[in-house]
Amino acid sequence: MQYRAPVRETLFVLYEVLQLHRYEDLADFEDLSDGVLEAILTGAAEFAEQLLAPLNRSGDQEGCSLQTDGSVRTPSGFKDAYRRLVEAGWSGLAASKRWGGRGLPYVVASAVEEYFNGANQSFSMYLNWGFYASMLMDVEGIDNLRRDYLHKLIAGEWTGTMALTEPHAGTDVGLLRTRAKIQADGSYRISGTKIFNSGGEHDLAENIVHFVLARIEAAPPGTRGISLFLVPKFEADANGERGRRNAVTCTLIENKMGLRGSATCVLNFDDASGWLIGEPHRGLSRMFVLMNHTRRSCGVIGVAGAEAACQMAAAYAKERLQGRASKERLNSAKPADPIIEHPDVRRVLMGIRAFVEPARALLLWMALQLDLSERSQDEDLRRRADDRIGLLTPILKAVLSDMSFVAAVQAQQMFGGHGYIVETGIEQYVRDLRVLMIAEGANGVQAMDLVSRQLQRRDGQAFASFRQEVADAIASQSQSFRYLSEPMSGALQDLSAVAEWLHGAAADDVAAGAYDFMTMLGLVALGYMWLLIAAAACAENSVLEEDEVDAKLARARFYMQRLLPEVAACRSRVLAGAADLMRLPVEAF
Amino acid sequence: MQYRAPVRETLFVLYEVLQLHRYEDLADFEDLSDGVLEAILTGAAEFAEQLLAPLNRSGDQEGCSLQTDGSVRTPSGFKDAYRRLVEAGWSGLAASKRWGGRGLPYVVASAVEEYFNGANQSFSMYLNWGFYASMLMDVEGIDNLRRDYLHKLIAGEWTGTMALTEPHAGTDVGLLRTRAKIQADGSYRISGTKIFNSGGEHDLAENIVHFVLARIEAAPPGTRGISLFLVPKFEADANGERGRRNAVTCTLIENKMGLRGSATCVLNFDDASGWLIGEPHRGLSRMFVLMNHTRRSCGVIGVAGAEAACQMAAAYAKERLQGRASKERLNSAKPADPIIEHPDVRRVLMGIRAFVEPARALLLWMALQLDLSERSQDEDLRRRADDRIGLLTPILKAVLSDMSFVAAVQAQQMFGGHGYIVETGIEQYVRDLRVLMIAEGANGVQAMDLVSRQLQRRDGQAFASFRQEVADAIASQSQSFRYLSEPMSGALQDLSAVAEWLHGAAADDVAAGAYDFMTMLGLVALGYMWLLIAAAACAENSVLEEDEVDAKLARARFYMQRLLPEVAACRSRVLAGAADLMRLPVEAF
Repeated sequence: MQYRAPVRETLFVLYEVLQLHRYEDLADFEDLSDGVLEAILTGAAEFAEQLLAPLNRSGDQEGCSLQTDGSVRTPSGFKDAYRRLVEAGWSGLAASKRWGGRGLPYVVASAVEEYFNGANQSFSMYLNWGFYASMLMDVEGIDNLRRDYLHKLIAGEWTGTMALTEPHAGTDVGLLRTRAKIQADGSYRISGTKIFNSGGEHDLAENIVHFVLARIEAAPPGTRGISLFLVPKFEADANGERGRRNAVTCTLIENKMGLRGSATCVLNFDDASGWLIGEPHRGLSRMFVLMNHTRRSCGVIGVAGAEAACQMAAAYAKERLQGRASKERLNSAKPADPIIEHPDVRRVLMGIRAFVEPARALLLWMALQLDLSERSQDEDLRRRADDRIGLLTPILKAVLSDMSFVAAVQAQQMFGGHGYIVETGIEQYVRDLRVLMIAEGANGVQAMDLVSRQLQRRDGQAFASFRQEVADAIASQSQSFRYLSEPMSGALQDLSAVAEWLHGAAADDVAAGAYDFMTMLGLVALGYMWLLIAAAACAENSVLEEDEVDAKLARARFYMQRLLPEVAACRSRVLAGAADLMRLPVEAF
Repeated sequence: MQYRAPVRETLFVLYEVLQLHRYEDLADFEDLSDGVLEAILTGAAEFAEQLLAPLNRSGDQEGCSLQTDGSVRTPSGFKDAYRRLVEAGWSGLAASKRWGGRGLPYVVASAVEEYFNGANQSFSMYLNWGFYASMLMDVEGIDNLRRDYLHKLIAGEWTGTMALTEPHAGTDVGLLRTRAKIQADGSYRISGTKIFNSGGEHDLAENIVHFVLARIEAAPPGTRGISLFLVPKFEADANGERGRRNAVTCTLIENKMGLRGSATCVLNFDDASGWLIGEPHRGLSRMFVLMNHTRRSCGVIGVAGAEAACQMAAAYAKERLQGRASKERLNSAKPADPIIEHPDVRRVLMGIRAFVEPARALLLWMALQLDLSERSQDEDLRRRADDRIGLLTPILKAVLSDMSFVAAVQAQQMFGGHGYIVETGIEQYVRDLRVLMIAEGANGVQAMDLVSRQLQRRDGQAFASFRQEVADAIASQSQSFRYLSEPMSGALQDLSAVAEWLHGAAADDVAAGAYDFMTMLGLVALGYMWLLIAAAACAENSVLEEDEVDAKLARARFYMQRLLPEVAACRSRVLAGAADLMRLPVEAF
């Protein structure tokens, strides 16, 4: 089963659910008229399906290898595919026009990101550095660095890495020890070891720019003494071309559960030349500007993989003849019916789609909020967008990665014993998607961010406003959609009650309930998307066919009946509190 | 972190929860007196910890390999460990004394099985053939076969395989095509290809006995035309030693997601000599006598792995310094607290234990039912035991494997990024345990068995009797355990209501609700075990220390507050029915 990028579904969400035409006035949105958007999506789909998807399984099986000279060889075909990607202009899509990027709205770049990741998650890990670097380097006083490095990054000729983590400093980045020593010319010498550097070394591009967090001599301890440096593998020469080799070496590539086509490197910086980006000791906040994007990306990648896995499972379920359907209505001439005729198989497949569709809508809606936050002239709109971004980014990162992983496991289950065999290709999705629950801050950390910061955003007004928004959507549903609005109304009440409880709870109780509260909020947000999708599908001018509308409404109902009930279970869990947990001695665990 | 077999916990369950002394009169139970049981468990624990656990990770990394001569090399160390296992008498534990086995009660063999699998799931796949063969070969008219093969199997000198599945015939075994042609001497010639044969070829023992399902010429189609054959790799010679090589070859070993130390073989039978076991065309029912054991084993293996994964995760959480606890009560001198001080980490770890403890009790309790079914003189007791076995075997197989997999994923999550790295060792549990949801009949098939057969067992009396049993346990809880009995009472009501609904429901509705009903029943059964555990822990003569009792009750409460609420969510799911699912055309999936 070849991966098919869901272009038609993306267009339905963009045009009919999000009503993109309402945003024509925003900067960069005007470029999307006259079929340009369709052309971008179709082109990206073609690239993903024809060039990236065929390298997915082989990339996993071959993996990356560290050569004796310290170079890293990526799987066969990756280098050629990367060259074509750059030539075709798929690099730097979302990078700002100000620095020479294409300036594509996030809402479009996010769709492209889904297709590329749906086709090949490992390969896609090497991308997006034009955009990331343009965000990181958007500070005063580094014109020369931008001139020397940013153009190449946006063009995709060079790539980048984030070098944050150290063996003893993961979630708690404040513990990091990498040192930076200022030189007479204002540059720094960087020394230390960084782990989990995705694409820290590879053979796809002729240079790699490391964005490194390090501590300047005599800096304060903890997170307030961390600075951000640009440390290139090769320094740019006077012409902006690859020059002197810098003292950064890859000493190991990790042997990982999945994502094996992506080189996860241990990097050793040995008095490497580096240049400060932004103010000293403020590097973490600089890195944080990326966080809403990289965390959202975890959701995008998850949903991309869940879609791909579901496509494979559905295709198999339609082919595989095994057992009799309860009504022998189909293949009475054959010895068995396709397993898609079994209700339990349909239940599983529809469960995946009932999650993937609103999740995609939520991701695109949130990408639109990021566009609004950066591009809107309307202060209210911007604030509203920022509220949604703050509140729901943990949902995109954590709830969507949790649910995507479960979806992949369920898709694998459809294959029976064959699903456990590597060659079948489905188990790779389980291994690859697993990382999303861990990367960019483990999901438990997202939950803590949600309850300890985002829930208090603007004195709780951000949450109150989202709650009201969902309540309004519920209230505005037509009578015929009561099967959607009633369950949502109950879920929203549960969510509100728990939020209130958390507001007055002790710190340990809040922490112990954080994860389940996050799940509740995620389920309500997905249900909200179903309300929007259902309304759009039934709108008079919808381009959907009648049977498509029917199927969408069935999935919406499935969601309300079978996924949303988890909200009430989560409520009980949160209200259980932390007393037992914290009372017991460590030995009891 | 070295795996530690939970001997103390096993003994608590056996002596205090199950009150093993009440069964002294049963055949084979009398052998367990005077510290024999403790000696067996301690010996098995030592063997598992010292010989099997050290081969777990290396076995995964090295895997098995098919040599050019068709032989299969198991990972380094497996052969030596297997030899020692046989020498130490750990083979044939549960095989009947009638055929020369040790005749150990299942309730004890099950504990040993947990330890071996907790230490090394792949290695343990090669075991138990003495027992399996003694069950399969317990038929009339094959004294010579037993003489030639069974003794060696029980001694562990030879091993076995089950050869059921064919590429097009998995769940639907009735589709199988392997042929058997009778010879003048009464033996058969077997031809066909079987897949997913665990231990179908390996270098641990000098001979392998394949138990093969095949169709005798002119047999009826479907499941009523399948016969069981013994097809040895080497025929036994006149002295019962390894003789002539038979025409069965391993043509491939599968490249699997996990369980890589276990050779999963494609076997080609090319007019191989075979001997009929039991009556012609009745092979499937012969194979079925093993099913209650192999399905229960899936639960045992799952809980074993969940225990092992949890041990690793808990040890890591106590060591790993990262972030500050909400009260900085511990390591104010150090830059961070161990992550075990975070409520969310404790929540996850306790969640695993809140599942593992009652799951272990349920497994041992069910093993005891199998002992009672075979050994009790009391017809009522035997019938009651059979009812429990029928009704709850799908729970052991499916619900415990589902929950064990989730537990392994959660344990992995505790390690952050390090959990995704192969060398850390935790991701192997996720990959290894994944197979349990698939093997021995995928979990969806178990759900169908439960609702379509077991729920109707003895006109529904089996279920009614179990329900009453749980209700009695709830009613007999002391007032101080209301925090356990009240949630259980609600869950039991939900379960009963849904069972009644299923009773009157259309076939498709039953099928669509089967999985969630199974989960409900599983959660109620685990909650029932918590009631028994709590009562035992608080009994006057309990050997548990006060802090152990306290921790157990905290876990019991955790279970009721955070795991049991899923029952109500499942209820909603079942009641949603199948209408939408079956109404939609295939293209909608």
